[in-house]
Amino acid sequence: MRKITVSKKLESFINEPSKFVGKDVDFKGVVYRIKDLGNFSFVHVFTTNGILQCVLGESEVGVKEGCAVKINGLVKEAKIKDKFIFPRNIEVEVKEIVILSSPESTMPFDITKKNLNINNDVKFDLRMISMRFPMERAIFKIQEGLVQGLRNYFMSESCTEIRTPKIVKEGAEGGANIFEIEYFGERAYLTQSPQFYKEFCTGVFQKVFEIAPVFRAEKHNTNRHINEYTSVDIEIGNIESFYEIMEFELGAIQSAFKNLIKNYQYELELLDIKISEVGEIPVLKFNEVKEILKSKFKLQDIDKSDLSPVEESKICEYIKNKTGSDFVFVTHYPSEKRPFYAKDDPVNPVETLSFDLLYKGIEITTGGQRINEYQELVEKMHSRGMKPEDFEFFSVAHKYGLLPHGGFGMGLERLTQKVIGLDSVKLATMFPRDIHRLTP
Amino acid sequence: MRKITVSKKLESFINEPSKFVGKDVDFKGVVYRIKDLGNFSFVHVFTTNGILQCVLGESEVGVKEGCAVKINGLVKEAKIKDKFIFPRNIEVEVKEIVILSSPESTMPFDITKKNLNINNDVKFDLRMISMRFPMERAIFKIQEGLVQGLRNYFMSESCTEIRTPKIVKEGAEGGANIFEIEYFGERAYLTQSPQFYKEFCTGVFQKVFEIAPVFRAEKHNTNRHINEYTSVDIEIGNIESFYEIMEFELGAIQSAFKNLIKNYQYELELLDIKISEVGEIPVLKFNEVKEILKSKFKLQDIDKSDLSPVEESKICEYIKNKTGSDFVFVTHYPSEKRPFYAKDDPVNPVETLSFDLLYKGIEITTGGQRINEYQELVEKMHSRGMKPEDFEFFSVAHKYGLLPHGGFGMGLERLTQKVIGLDSVKLATMFPRDIHRLTP
Repeated sequence: MRKITVSKKLESFINEPSKFVGKDVDFKGVVYRIKDLGNFSFVHVFTTNGILQCVLGESEVGVKEGCAVKINGLVKEAKIKDKFIFPRNIEVEVKEIVILSSPESTMPFDITKKNLNINNDVKFDLRMISMRFPMERAIFKIQEGLVQGLRNYFMSESCTEIRTPKIVKEGAEGGANIFEIEYFGERAYLTQSPQFYKEFCTGVFQKVFEIAPVFRAEKHNTNRHINEYTSVDIEIGNIESFYEIMEFELGAIQSAFKNLIKNYQYELELLDIKISEVGEIPVLKFNEVKEILKSKFKLQDIDKSDLSPVEESKICEYIKNKTGSDFVFVTHYPSEKRPFYAKDDPVNPVETLSFDLLYKGIEITTGGQRINEYQELVEKMHSRGMKPEDFEFFSVAHKYGLLPHGGFGMGLERLTQKVIGLDSVKLATMFPRDIHRLTP
Repeated sequence: MRKITVSKKLESFINEPSKFVGKDVDFKGVVYRIKDLGNFSFVHVFTTNGILQCVLGESEVGVKEGCAVKINGLVKEAKIKDKFIFPRNIEVEVKEIVILSSPESTMPFDITKKNLNINNDVKFDLRMISMRFPMERAIFKIQEGLVQGLRNYFMSESCTEIRTPKIVKEGAEGGANIFEIEYFGERAYLTQSPQFYKEFCTGVFQKVFEIAPVFRAEKHNTNRHINEYTSVDIEIGNIESFYEIMEFELGAIQSAFKNLIKNYQYELELLDIKISEVGEIPVLKFNEVKEILKSKFKLQDIDKSDLSPVEESKICEYIKNKTGSDFVFVTHYPSEKRPFYAKDDPVNPVETLSFDLLYKGIEITTGGQRINEYQELVEKMHSRGMKPEDFEFFSVAHKYGLLPHGGFGMGLERLTQKVIGLDSVKLATMFPRDIHRLTP
């Protein structure tokens, strides 16, 4: 009987190419570009980890851009300046090249130049091939690096990774911004947030996280919105102050940025991004923000209970100038604009123990402490004209004991967008969904 | 201005309790059970990592089961036999205990006994509190451990973590088992599989993975089915044989099982599970399986192009007896039952280069090599009466060059179910969705 076993992999060279100088190696990849220099040519080959420079002694019949190839060659030291190549301190002198597949057609746009000169609609329509441009690919490697850094932190802080349902009977945020689905004859919705479920899970695991899609049927078509996005959700229990949640979030961001600096140098250089470690984040109360906006920017206060996109942008500008920080926590949002489960500040109950984290002009996180006592939750629902019996599936967790807890949700695509400095959140989404876009 | 910084955490003791013998520690948790022994009592406290035994000199007013508490105490060596306690080689002599929250009501069932004597409907209806029973909680810790072990392997093999849309215009599997949603006046669906997207991504990153929800509107209500589940999806490029995909899957399972053995000993003991390392997995061709079923089990061959649940169960029994393996790969499924993108075997085109992985009587994975050449894909679509122009969004990746690739999708809940030995896949799902269940 045939048996499957795990054999030695070809990948070892690809993972640490510089260690193989002077050695014969085998590896596979996809030909990114060919530079014919007469009696030899450079064949730049995309591996899983970057673009290797290979030197081909004589032009090989049939090797063209887009071919998948298997190469045997000798690793030599090199000094390459082209930032598309990685690593730049070695190259491979090709001894044998085998073609594994060959494209039917040449690409409709040139992915071997310094810029991909196509508009965003073409880019999104042909995402399956426009992502092959190294700088587009790099966006999603950076996104991966952020996720890994965040997750490493969550795991090191003893959070349990949870999986909550995306088809739900009730929306956590309520309102009209919710996609409806027919579920075997019943009306159901796509989740807007795992809020209720992650709160349940603090009663079981104390600290939990989930990185998963959420859905918002918002009709605006702006560069700030997508209708399906990845929410990095955290909920931590046994907090004694809601500042602990912010401290936790700072720790997570530090971990994410460190991971980029350590493991994504190629992509950071390619996208020309400087990432600085984040030491501390300034905190302002919502009312203080409104004061600053009035006194320093003469902004008209249109919505007294929330910050507009312009206000978010201005306060970030102010903090950046004053402290050098790209981040600012805004705390104590008015109770009326926060959901019923938000904990009011006992000192001043018209404010909540909540926060937003603003980053480079935009809100990337909403978080705060939640009500954990059953009676307090019931009273809050009464005060809002809600019927506690409609929310028994939620308050049952509180009834049988729920530790003091709070958390946040962070939009992964917005974080990616702002780390890289992209114009639109859609550019930080592999296959964006908006009011006009459902494909590919 | 207030600033958030990251301070030293209380968690260090919780993470390595045995290292703190003889020391004074502070930690937080939730009181799981109290055993009053007259002049002292055991207070068993759930931390993020297990249940610690704490010794309280005199009965403290107000401390009851379900309270969140903050404890200061002295760590002492101990020899505890109760497998609910972890770790069992230390206990904490309480010096001070502060109550952070206290439950409104006592639990409607007893979570401090050896068994949770409630039926599955009650268990699911009250999942937010039934998961507080240590053996229920352990199921989802095991699930987490499997995910982490799988993901570690994928990352060590240079796979890129991708995020693909869950709202789609076309179903990857087709058929009626698909949830429909209204998307701003257009008809859309919930994804059944990230198949098309992960294939696109091999053209960009070569090796990719995604662990995310998928949705199947299947009307059967069995212990094998849920309507929303977590699919562990992998697609790897530059394969030279489809056996490489199986080898990759074996490596992933080895990594997952090793992670359980290394980091989830408490939960394994609690659930009384023996996990053995997986050295190799036997492989049988589909036709060989049918032969064995006929000759050894006298089973009537009802569906010549697929295996029934009974057949899956019987062949697993046969392999277990013959080789001791809980796993078996079945390869070369008939082309007619596999999707259009499956690669036919050039040696015998009525069979595909595909496989299922069966584990303890049930299919947990479907995988295989895919067509990567454009012309081959177009011809396959023609041969099935499909219009290639309807699938241009898919074949565009092939047209501009797609490396030889293949992959698999594994149902996380089924894997969890079978590792633990649960009767139903629903029991391995935090908040299961079936034809009758949409809450909580």
